[in-house]
Amino acid sequence: MIVDCAAYEGGRRREGELSMERAGEAAGEEGTFVWLGVVEPSEEEFKAVAAEFGLHELAVEDAVRAHQRPKVEAYGETIHVVVKPARYVDPDEVIEVGELSIFVAPDFVITVRHGDANLAAVRERLEGRSDLLEKGTGAVLYAIVDHVVDRYMEAVHGFDEDVREVELQVFGEGANPTERIYKLEREVLEFQAAALPLGEALEELCSGNFAVVPETLHEYFRDVEDHLRRVNGRIENFRQLLDSALEANLTQVSMRQNEDMRKISAWVAIAVVPTMIAGIYGMNFEHMPELEWSFGYPTVLGLILAVCAFLYWRFKRAGWL
Amino acid sequence: MIVDCAAYEGGRRREGELSMERAGEAAGEEGTFVWLGVVEPSEEEFKAVAAEFGLHELAVEDAVRAHQRPKVEAYGETIHVVVKPARYVDPDEVIEVGELSIFVAPDFVITVRHGDANLAAVRERLEGRSDLLEKGTGAVLYAIVDHVVDRYMEAVHGFDEDVREVELQVFGEGANPTERIYKLEREVLEFQAAALPLGEALEELCSGNFAVVPETLHEYFRDVEDHLRRVNGRIENFRQLLDSALEANLTQVSMRQNEDMRKISAWVAIAVVPTMIAGIYGMNFEHMPELEWSFGYPTVLGLILAVCAFLYWRFKRAGWL
Amino acid sequence: MIVDCAAYEGGRRREGELSMERAGEAAGEEGTFVWLGVVEPSEEEFKAVAAEFGLHELAVEDAVRAHQRPKVEAYGETIHVVVKPARYVDPDEVIEVGELSIFVAPDFVITVRHGDANLAAVRERLEGRSDLLEKGTGAVLYAIVDHVVDRYMEAVHGFDEDVREVELQVFGEGANPTERIYKLEREVLEFQAAALPLGEALEELCSGNFAVVPETLHEYFRDVEDHLRRVNGRIENFRQLLDSALEANLTQVSMRQNEDMRKISAWVAIAVVPTMIAGIYGMNFEHMPELEWSFGYPTVLGLILAVCAFLYWRFKRAGWL
Amino acid sequence: MIVDCAAYEGGRRREGELSMERAGEAAGEEGTFVWLGVVEPSEEEFKAVAAEFGLHELAVEDAVRAHQRPKVEAYGETIHVVVKPARYVDPDEVIEVGELSIFVAPDFVITVRHGDANLAAVRERLEGRSDLLEKGTGAVLYAIVDHVVDRYMEAVHGFDEDVREVELQVFGEGANPTERIYKLEREVLEFQAAALPLGEALEELCSGNFAVVPETLHEYFRDVEDHLRRVNGRIENFRQLLDSALEANLTQVSMRQNEDMRKISAWVAIAVVPTMIAGIYGMNFEHMPELEWSFGYPTVLGLILAVCAFLYWRFKRAGWL
Amino acid sequence: MIVDCAAYEGGRRREGELSMERAGEAAGEEGTFVWLGVVEPSEEEFKAVAAEFGLHELAVEDAVRAHQRPKVEAYGETIHVVVKPARYVDPDEVIEVGELSIFVAPDFVITVRHGDANLAAVRERLEGRSDLLEKGTGAVLYAIVDHVVDRYMEAVHGFDEDVREVELQVFGEGANPTERIYKLEREVLEFQAAALPLGEALEELCSGNFAVVPETLHEYFRDVEDHLRRVNGRIENFRQLLDSALEANLTQVSMRQNEDMRKISAWVAIAVVPTMIAGIYGMNFEHMPELEWSFGYPTVLGLILAVCAFLYWRFKRAGWL
Repeated sequence: MIVDCAAYEGGRRREGELSMERAGEAAGEEGTFVWLGVVEPSEEEFKAVAAEFGLHELAVEDAVRAHQRPKVEAYGETIHVVVKPARYVDPDEVIEVGELSIFVAPDFVITVRHGDANLAAVRERLEGRSDLLEKGTGAVLYAIVDHVVDRYMEAVHGFDEDVREVELQVFGEGANPTERIYKLEREVLEFQAAALPLGEALEELCSGNFAVVPETLHEYFRDVEDHLRRVNGRIENFRQLLDSALEANLTQVSMRQNEDMRKISAWVAIAVVPTMIAGIYGMNFEHMPELEWSFGYPTVLGLILAVCAFLYWRFKRAGWL
Repeated sequence: MIVDCAAYEGGRRREGELSMERAGEAAGEEGTFVWLGVVEPSEEEFKAVAAEFGLHELAVEDAVRAHQRPKVEAYGETIHVVVKPARYVDPDEVIEVGELSIFVAPDFVITVRHGDANLAAVRERLEGRSDLLEKGTGAVLYAIVDHVVDRYMEAVHGFDEDVREVELQVFGEGANPTERIYKLEREVLEFQAAALPLGEALEELCSGNFAVVPETLHEYFRDVEDHLRRVNGRIENFRQLLDSALEANLTQVSMRQNEDMRKISAWVAIAVVPTMIAGIYGMNFEHMPELEWSFGYPTVLGLILAVCAFLYWRFKRAGWL
Repeated sequence: MIVDCAAYEGGRRREGELSMERAGEAAGEEGTFVWLGVVEPSEEEFKAVAAEFGLHELAVEDAVRAHQRPKVEAYGETIHVVVKPARYVDPDEVIEVGELSIFVAPDFVITVRHGDANLAAVRERLEGRSDLLEKGTGAVLYAIVDHVVDRYMEAVHGFDEDVREVELQVFGEGANPTERIYKLEREVLEFQAAALPLGEALEELCSGNFAVVPETLHEYFRDVEDHLRRVNGRIENFRQLLDSALEANLTQVSMRQNEDMRKISAWVAIAVVPTMIAGIYGMNFEHMPELEWSFGYPTVLGLILAVCAFLYWRFKRAGWL
Repeated sequence: MIVDCAAYEGGRRREGELSMERAGEAAGEEGTFVWLGVVEPSEEEFKAVAAEFGLHELAVEDAVRAHQRPKVEAYGETIHVVVKPARYVDPDEVIEVGELSIFVAPDFVITVRHGDANLAAVRERLEGRSDLLEKGTGAVLYAIVDHVVDRYMEAVHGFDEDVREVELQVFGEGANPTERIYKLEREVLEFQAAALPLGEALEELCSGNFAVVPETLHEYFRDVEDHLRRVNGRIENFRQLLDSALEANLTQVSMRQNEDMRKISAWVAIAVVPTMIAGIYGMNFEHMPELEWSFGYPTVLGLILAVCAFLYWRFKRAGWL
Repeated sequence: MIVDCAAYEGGRRREGELSMERAGEAAGEEGTFVWLGVVEPSEEEFKAVAAEFGLHELAVEDAVRAHQRPKVEAYGETIHVVVKPARYVDPDEVIEVGELSIFVAPDFVITVRHGDANLAAVRERLEGRSDLLEKGTGAVLYAIVDHVVDRYMEAVHGFDEDVREVELQVFGEGANPTERIYKLEREVLEFQAAALPLGEALEELCSGNFAVVPETLHEYFRDVEDHLRRVNGRIENFRQLLDSALEANLTQVSMRQNEDMRKISAWVAIAVVPTMIAGIYGMNFEHMPELEWSFGYPTVLGLILAVCAFLYWRFKRAGWL
């Protein structure tokens, strides 16, 4: 499904939407390029686009199937860039990873979107920057990748908060955070699978091998690359923190087990004493002088209470209760 | 045992099966190549093939013994590619790894199969694509490797499901998943040993050093390489998830141990109280006024029940029961 | 906010503070350079500076936002260096990481500071070394980076002490150090994120690609790089020690749990014996000769005491008490 | 001690054993080379050999002392190769690592053996392959290294079996396998120290830098390298499996502890009930109607048995017994 | 403090000690070099030396402060090598790391020592090898580094013994080795920080970039490098063994805890039975026929003993006692 198709000329958008056929023509004009946006196309839909713009058979298959790694692949003059936009859904603590296939040639950009990445906003912002648009199709690629990496940063903030919450859970009272830690680790790994290989792709884009990324854009791509490195640094950081949190959590569980055991034992000890003393005065010897004393019973009761109180005080002092 | 032997010319299969001698002749003809499929050959059988097509002594030994790592080895014009097809047998959670030795020269392809890899399907599909077949023997190699990597992807899906099941086991009730996690880890390692070195081999194939892989095929091999990278990324992911699952599982075991301990202790505490009280009224003091009361016995019984109920309620509230 | 702005000529500071406009002029003079210090500027403030000195749009954005990784980026003749000064706040065991954006061109240095890094001290010390100042703006860069790395070393000493304290806690008596170890690990990771990428940046500075770092300064930068390597080596060391400490701590927790369990069990055993013996003499058989003995009761009491004493001695000897 | 010394000419062994002096002469003849085998020589013995063949002082020291890593070192035309043959002694689960110093020059091979490596068999097999022998001294080196790597493969099979046995122990009943796992890990590390650096050495041998390894032998050395990679892949695999086994084992120990704790607690609970009930009817109240019933005692006994049976059934059902 | 200063000429030491001024002159003579040994100099002392021999400001600072990593740094013709001699103090299980700054120019060697490294012995041994001394100042550097690496090897043997002792402790009876393992790990890390970077430095020395290390010495440095690799291999090995030992130890602690728990429980079970039976015969029912039997008491006592003996036997057989 085509969602937006326009021609750009001299840093400005030409009036009106283009049909696909008109787009092909417009792309052929000198000093003009076309940006065609497609969303989750069927194989037939996209084959038509591919035929119009001369895309490679393999790239088409990959763009439709959408199970790619981030990468840059050159097919002649056209380059095929795959990026994976990510969004952190905080209440569920889940990272949602989409896929964007971008075909960039000197005279056209085709963006194929799977999942929700707000390219309309990118287009709008870029249309306000004619200095960038003048640099050609590479600028469109830059704007998209910049947007994706900015979204990564937001996802990083989302993770950051949850990792801090998990830490509070590990070292505070409350529910066992093991499952949460594990699930977060899973999501972090998925995020990393989306973000890490993009670095390599960005490096390639700055290598000067691709005509569609002129040297005046290298600084821009290097800037994005730098932000991406920060993202990847933070992701690695999360993994290490969650690893340590998992181990610290195990220790805390053991600690709490020990505390419970001590508390239980202390109460058992306090309960064992009356039973023991009562057992002794429950013996049936004929000659047990205490049994005949008038104050034997209250004395023994008092003794029991005193011993229990003493034990309670000792355990309290030792931190077992 | 030879399973299929045919000559290909101008992108089409020549009619009829060839005997091995005829195959040698056909390979010599201009613009023709032969594809010879062999399954688990004995040393003598394969030595005959090797003599006919001039294969290197060491390659022969390796192809027959079948304990190779994935690799590309050049012996003059002929290259020897080893790939290890894998199949995930889900009910047993076992990865079955076979071995394929492929000898590719400009005028012949010899495939030596150990274990079950469905090359008949590959051959059939390729015979329907004369545009690829025209590119020569390298296209056969591409078709086989592409097929193998597609099978890897299926294996990845199989693992994915089992890893998710294991997660449910770790965090849910039910049997101890330690052994299952360990066994899965073992299988993942075996899968990785098959898939990881293939990446290096594919990179070499795209390097342009081998005449049998012309440049028009590089994009195809790079596409396979890319899919393989996804596979290898996922495999690495599984290893990390299983590692974490093993550790999370240990924590869960400790947690459950603690819960059991608390439950047990709570019941013991509830049982200790009647014994203690009864012990006191079992003492033989002569002057124990309660013993003579008419309602002493029911009162004490009630006291015991009340204390037990109170403890039960406390433990229930504290989450110990 | 501009904090200090001066012109340097022939290794000496020219008298007086410069306004920003005068600074631009001074920078234009032959053999003179300007050092402009800015602290946490607003976007408008810094845009004025950037316009005066011709800084790149992207660098400006990064300098104002201050969420950069350490790096060197060249924009034409001007290089943009980002370093992250760190200070270890010992009572809180927290590493405070600031950010310094340094723009170095042959005729000016602009330092943009976020967080507290004492650049006044650097300026003062450098002004006493006219041999260095004569080497131009690169010397200013050297002086700043040298200062930052020296501060890193102090932070390393701070960590070192706390790691040693943690070790005493792990192997001594006292509070559970799990949370402290984890928190320290978190801070070490943050420190590492500041210090590790600086190494790469310093290597680039010594590569000879930048006109503002002449060869006579390479030895100086290599010296700083070497100190940084020591810092990074120590940081890595801390991570490994804290990892091991976390695991050793778990073992110690288990050991202590075992010791507690033995101690508790020993006391329970000692208490069970009197109950058991008393139980036996509490039976109501008609024919129990001991019950009628005159010294039955004291004998049994003595027996109980003897058995308890014996058990106590045994447990003491076995190290359970 | 010299164990075998012979001259080879045109792919065949010349009749008879040579004395060392005669060996030196024979080596000087055109188209002839000498293979001298020495076992654990004393310093003096080997210095004589070294003088005769002009070996480098440092190489001599290393060959006699025998605490080398696998390596290739060139001293002029002569190369010094160190390999470490390994043998897995299964009953003891110990890897025995020897050392072989091989000096290869165009006209002689000197092998210095420490520990038992069956070079006689290598020599015999090689003497049956005149096509290889004709390639000169490099072929001797190949034959030896090939033999060593084949022995590695056998050691790998030995480890494989023991790792599988250990897995059965971890997940089955029986003795605590912790020590066994640790000891195996130790042996695997020792094996790896012998096998891993050999890869680098083999790569160097194929680099074409050494005259004694002509290009016709490269395929042979690459074949050995490939087998070695398999060995090293398996060794790495063992390490990871043993690591996981150690952790799985810890979990199993915890699981078993929990099971024991449940079993113990169940029995304690069953034993506590009679004591509690008996305690109640052991109270000395004057008015306890049950005490006077004729069937009071059997009723209570029955009650006790019923409760115990009920508890037993409940615990059985819950899997605690 | 200058400890030894001599001139060497034609492979021999010139008679007599030199004062520092005379040393400067001697160094200027053709075919002569000077070796000046300094121990923990004050800043002023060393500044005088530096002035005499023209050492670089930064190198001087580093040599006096002595908190360097092992490295090679070239300042013009002079190279500054830092090595860190290590000594393993066995009774304390502590590695003592010193520091040696060596300035090597074609006509002088200055050694600055911190901590105890026996350079007198190195000097003496080297003076007996005029073939080496003739190769110039590089030979002095070789002799020192060789000595340092030989000392490393001794330290490795010291660690090796202690690691084996720790293993015995982990799997045998006796004290908890957790702290010892951790402390050893700490020392191993410190040793590694001294030895690992030296490898890089040695590689650089063999690169042929430094005039003071002529090609005739490369084989010597490569030999030392090789020994150092062995050292570093062993150190890495220790780290892995100690890591595994820490984890194995945790498992052993858990195992022992379980054994203790079983033993305790078994005794508790044996003690509970008499209490339970005695409780039953302590009930006050009027109609309990056993109570009136003449042999009731001894029968019950016998029953108690029999049950206890039976339990003891069962527990013994199950390995709980």
